[in-house]
Amino acid sequence: MYHGKGHNSRSGFSLPERSSPRSLGLWLGQLPTGTRNDLTDVSGVGVGHVSLIRGEGPLVAGQGPVRTGVTAILPHRGNLYRQPCRAGIHVFNGFGKSIGVPFIQETGLINAPILLTNTLSVNDAANGVITYLLKENPEIGDDARTPDIIVFECDDSYLNDIRGRHVRPWDAILAIQRATSGPIAQGNVGAGVGMSCFQLKGGIGSSSRLIHRTDGRTFTLGMLALANFGLLEDLLINGVPVGTMLQVEKSSEYIPGSLISVGVTDAPLSSRQLERLASRTALGQARAGSLSRTGSGDFSLFVSTAPLSQTGVLSDWELDLYYQAVVETAAESIWNAIFLAESMSGRDEHVRQALPLQETLAIIKNWAGGLSSRPGG
Amino acid sequence: MYHGKGHNSRSGFSLPERSSPRSLGLWLGQLPTGTRNDLTDVSGVGVGHVSLIRGEGPLVAGQGPVRTGVTAILPHRGNLYRQPCRAGIHVFNGFGKSIGVPFIQETGLINAPILLTNTLSVNDAANGVITYLLKENPEIGDDARTPDIIVFECDDSYLNDIRGRHVRPWDAILAIQRATSGPIAQGNVGAGVGMSCFQLKGGIGSSSRLIHRTDGRTFTLGMLALANFGLLEDLLINGVPVGTMLQVEKSSEYIPGSLISVGVTDAPLSSRQLERLASRTALGQARAGSLSRTGSGDFSLFVSTAPLSQTGVLSDWELDLYYQAVVETAAESIWNAIFLAESMSGRDEHVRQALPLQETLAIIKNWAGGLSSRPGG
Amino acid sequence: MYHGKGHNSRSGFSLPERSSPRSLGLWLGQLPTGTRNDLTDVSGVGVGHVSLIRGEGPLVAGQGPVRTGVTAILPHRGNLYRQPCRAGIHVFNGFGKSIGVPFIQETGLINAPILLTNTLSVNDAANGVITYLLKENPEIGDDARTPDIIVFECDDSYLNDIRGRHVRPWDAILAIQRATSGPIAQGNVGAGVGMSCFQLKGGIGSSSRLIHRTDGRTFTLGMLALANFGLLEDLLINGVPVGTMLQVEKSSEYIPGSLISVGVTDAPLSSRQLERLASRTALGQARAGSLSRTGSGDFSLFVSTAPLSQTGVLSDWELDLYYQAVVETAAESIWNAIFLAESMSGRDEHVRQALPLQETLAIIKNWAGGLSSRPGG
Amino acid sequence: MYHGKGHNSRSGFSLPERSSPRSLGLWLGQLPTGTRNDLTDVSGVGVGHVSLIRGEGPLVAGQGPVRTGVTAILPHRGNLYRQPCRAGIHVFNGFGKSIGVPFIQETGLINAPILLTNTLSVNDAANGVITYLLKENPEIGDDARTPDIIVFECDDSYLNDIRGRHVRPWDAILAIQRATSGPIAQGNVGAGVGMSCFQLKGGIGSSSRLIHRTDGRTFTLGMLALANFGLLEDLLINGVPVGTMLQVEKSSEYIPGSLISVGVTDAPLSSRQLERLASRTALGQARAGSLSRTGSGDFSLFVSTAPLSQTGVLSDWELDLYYQAVVETAAESIWNAIFLAESMSGRDEHVRQALPLQETLAIIKNWAGGLSSRPGG
Repeated sequence: MYHGKGHNSRSGFSLPERSSPRSLGLWLGQLPTGTRNDLTDVSGVGVGHVSLIRGEGPLVAGQGPVRTGVTAILPHRGNLYRQPCRAGIHVFNGFGKSIGVPFIQETGLINAPILLTNTLSVNDAANGVITYLLKENPEIGDDARTPDIIVFECDDSYLNDIRGRHVRPWDAILAIQRATSGPIAQGNVGAGVGMSCFQLKGGIGSSSRLIHRTDGRTFTLGMLALANFGLLEDLLINGVPVGTMLQVEKSSEYIPGSLISVGVTDAPLSSRQLERLASRTALGQARAGSLSRTGSGDFSLFVSTAPLSQTGVLSDWELDLYYQAVVETAAESIWNAIFLAESMSGRDEHVRQALPLQETLAIIKNWAGGLSSRPGG
Repeated sequence: MYHGKGHNSRSGFSLPERSSPRSLGLWLGQLPTGTRNDLTDVSGVGVGHVSLIRGEGPLVAGQGPVRTGVTAILPHRGNLYRQPCRAGIHVFNGFGKSIGVPFIQETGLINAPILLTNTLSVNDAANGVITYLLKENPEIGDDARTPDIIVFECDDSYLNDIRGRHVRPWDAILAIQRATSGPIAQGNVGAGVGMSCFQLKGGIGSSSRLIHRTDGRTFTLGMLALANFGLLEDLLINGVPVGTMLQVEKSSEYIPGSLISVGVTDAPLSSRQLERLASRTALGQARAGSLSRTGSGDFSLFVSTAPLSQTGVLSDWELDLYYQAVVETAAESIWNAIFLAESMSGRDEHVRQALPLQETLAIIKNWAGGLSSRPGG
Repeated sequence: MYHGKGHNSRSGFSLPERSSPRSLGLWLGQLPTGTRNDLTDVSGVGVGHVSLIRGEGPLVAGQGPVRTGVTAILPHRGNLYRQPCRAGIHVFNGFGKSIGVPFIQETGLINAPILLTNTLSVNDAANGVITYLLKENPEIGDDARTPDIIVFECDDSYLNDIRGRHVRPWDAILAIQRATSGPIAQGNVGAGVGMSCFQLKGGIGSSSRLIHRTDGRTFTLGMLALANFGLLEDLLINGVPVGTMLQVEKSSEYIPGSLISVGVTDAPLSSRQLERLASRTALGQARAGSLSRTGSGDFSLFVSTAPLSQTGVLSDWELDLYYQAVVETAAESIWNAIFLAESMSGRDEHVRQALPLQETLAIIKNWAGGLSSRPGG
Repeated sequence: MYHGKGHNSRSGFSLPERSSPRSLGLWLGQLPTGTRNDLTDVSGVGVGHVSLIRGEGPLVAGQGPVRTGVTAILPHRGNLYRQPCRAGIHVFNGFGKSIGVPFIQETGLINAPILLTNTLSVNDAANGVITYLLKENPEIGDDARTPDIIVFECDDSYLNDIRGRHVRPWDAILAIQRATSGPIAQGNVGAGVGMSCFQLKGGIGSSSRLIHRTDGRTFTLGMLALANFGLLEDLLINGVPVGTMLQVEKSSEYIPGSLISVGVTDAPLSSRQLERLASRTALGQARAGSLSRTGSGDFSLFVSTAPLSQTGVLSDWELDLYYQAVVETAAESIWNAIFLAESMSGRDEHVRQALPLQETLAIIKNWAGGLSSRPGG
């Protein structure tokens, strides 16, 4: 019996250490990465995980096994309720139970931390955020405004006792409190603990790019993905249909998942421009093989950390470099998630295997762009 | 100190009995109403209220005073999770914390009861619905689907200790269990208990229309509104700017509210057609004076109770009568809410006066379409 | 045989002079109007009409009778292609052949004059605008940009030989060249020549409001409507169902029409805010009785004349006065169109009667808000 | 001086014959293609081209050189105005002057042929379609309906005298009349004549897939792209960043283009489902390197040829195979366009080189998934 143990104890795991595709030598785009190549390369961004991993064996609803968690993203470390950020959201595939979408669509703003968790725990996570914000902002309830909670979710029920709703409001608060600058733990951590991707183990992945402008200024764009989607046969790595050629056991059932992406940049973009960045996320996800299958809730949120009064000054004609950064980080975040996630077993002896790295690299090397080999043959 | 006491005890109230505008003789449109002139005229629809009214005096967050509640609408009385309904939603003004909107936009379906409550209690109400659906549907958590919860909200914080989040998950379950065919209690009941409208007392209102088709068939369309919006000066009744002429105390503070509308029909409409019906709700709300001010979360959901396999057979060119029914019921639902809601006091000696009916009728009679009198003068 | 003769010759008409509802004493809202109470109260706005009225008798496609025209609106009198304006559009009902909508939705900008004409002439009007812009801007075709033409349309085929496509590209150019500050001719002019509204004569109407802000600044908001929609029974004037009580001949066939609204303001609003203003147009149209029936192409465009670099500085919480101005001008523009349009005959002896003003006023006076009389009874 | 000469004379061209990537041995997805691997594999679909290629040398606006054309797609060969088709449209990037989008969004129907042409000729093409439909349907202008024209466009001004508007209405009619079942001429034909893609020669490409369902039925899905977008460095072929490694002359200026996709299937999908198919087009385009840069008008239209009364019967859970077909054909259509388009010179000695096929294949073979080589290095 094997599984990851959350981000504090991952080094004790018996399988060979996981590695990111970039560290294995894969070329992953034209733009330079930030220092850590993750979301926290954007100054001020904090990410916090709470991983919940308990029990083995048959599913006993309400008891376990528990393979779930919650991840909090704070665009800045001040009071978000009083200092909102410009934001744009793109709903590529609206399945899912995500909370807070219409408000962002209406106002182009966010005023709360961004939480990720499992499908049936969105309301408990939201209640945690409300408790947190009520405490931080005693004026709520006695003036005109109320906080607009943002929670995205994916379904981890293949491994997790999702009916047990084991994420409690205090887990959401704890994830917020744990939020730090990176490097971000990736793979089987936080909301990523119980996630599946391409019928393999999925989870949290992140990536970043630097945008060197011709006027000498540099902006940073970071992405964090909660990857929980796709059939094995969908998996593409740098265009290679790896999923069709892997010799992994195919016993793992496909359950429609979801794909959540949160991007942050320090560029002073308008909410309309951030919506455009959010829409380009799908172009990067496509490079990893996403078909946005039925049932997959594919949401992308983009946030600017620039002060509200400074946003909206960039011409649309300057956006192309940001689009390129979005596409590159969206793909690399997914690949990071599956390269870094370890194999995990969960309820009812369900197992999600980790992507086998050596076999994957061999397939990629031999592919020759589809000219010398054929998938499945 | 005075306030309504929930729908079981409203007759004990000392003010003159409230009356609907129709019973007072106002002409309210060209189409005939259903038997009860409320949402439950649509066969099979159930509505249940839980009203929470406790305490007086200064606000002590977490204790009270409590002026809130929850209302459940069940489009049919079977298992909604297994027998979904076609639905269409229109977001006229996306402020607000409503839950479930993207799923309906994506799929054109609902598979859960529809709940209404206060702004900070949406997640508790949602958790109640999840508990209810998990019990009814043991397959959840072990197959591909998960339920898509629908909760709409308005802000009742002018009267209610909203920080106390007094609506508990079991209140949502109780509202679902109480759902019966009508007549529906209106005014200060369920989610309507603490609501304000035109700086007067708002709440729950409902109305219905019959659509007699040229082919001899008759369909029914019903509407339920949770009315919690507008300045006094916005109020229009049959085109008369009553709000500008009422001699009520103007001490009541304006807080941006919201306006939720849920329509149901037995006509076999497609989800695209239901979206169109939902969009016409705003045209009826406009007749009652809605400007959809900043901060008002104005959502309209329309549901067809016809079996999925029978929907989508009506030509778009047959829709006009349904549009007319939507517009008439949307306006009458709001007027019903404010004509039927009683005065109520809440936290910190805040009071929302009921619409003064005799004065209102006198203003209407003397108005002469704006030719013989002037508001404010 | 009678009909209007275009805006240069309207005084020769034999029926009693038409009057606006405001001049007849109707109360039409709480906000003050601009000097002329039309769109050109917004500084710099120009409006030009070309009215095409030729022939009588049976329809001979390609020959006539001709009852059509074109109207041009220029938000400012500089080079729009080089100095675009912020804009927002709301499609309430997407029937219709309007040109240019996706570009405005994507960019929140306009860079061309706004044209109105009949349904089958949109492409000829568009070609006229292209010719005009190519001449003004020789760089087009040799750099990265091309102009984004905006033409809205309504169907005037009840009176007009619409198959004849009598609006030629040079008519569009002429309308642009004629654009002047007001007062704007209203009723049967320009694109309004052949339009029907409530099975009566429709056409062009306009209105404006001043927004006095608490900081001492005053902004102006103007609206122009091309009114060509609705059944007689839909007509509401200040809430009075005048259409159900008029004793006019009902022989005039109903043809699904459309309702185009163009608003302009000098307030420095963002495109997202202008979209919100555009959406509130429907709330004013509802007060005139609009149900947005199937087949009606109901588009609303809002433009800010403020320089791009100055826009986006107003908080959303300041928008309510603008919403009120939108609602009031949207309703008054429609009423102005039908109060000012004269009776007109067209092809095949088709006639659209003008709204009978004395009878209308009498109905309004006697209505008493629906308490003392009943429509149809 | 060299250029293609339209699809009747392409064999006379002196460069080596162009070949599709599939014929060159590239693996291009998992699903089987239809007989011709183009849009006309869907039964009944007709495609017609008119290619306009005249003149050489400096641009003389109005005279030439002419490098443009028009392409017509007829989903079925009956009377489209009287027998509309279900349709869904997705606007990924709303730059562009496309005609007919709001009607399709509102109704989910098309009732006219689909035309493609250059940016400034959309209105002339539209006028041609109107003339065609007026002749076919004498009832237009005397009943309630009018035709809803659909024209998409890309900007061919790098090679073409776009100011000359050389596409005349009769060219659109001729393209409709020429519409036949395939095989479809691809590359520099019809609307594709003057198009650029990745700073190379772009144009028309097409592809198809068969969907073998578990119930034994087979459906066909075809795609046609008008490819006119992207920087050279964006180009991906099967994941290989070919564009970064090609040794082609980079003198060719980048002008923001557009990317139009039209898909047709005989599967009885609802308009809501067709919208979803349309949205997945971007996922295939991403595999060819699309970033949907600023200024690129990226529209995707999907049409079902099934009779209206039979549509809407497929469950959403059956859509995944269709999504896969969309993604595969969207990518292959673009690659077909650039593999099949020949080099072309146009106005002012501007030249767009054809993709060099041998060099491209060599780059692909040596790439090894990004493990053994580096672009640019």
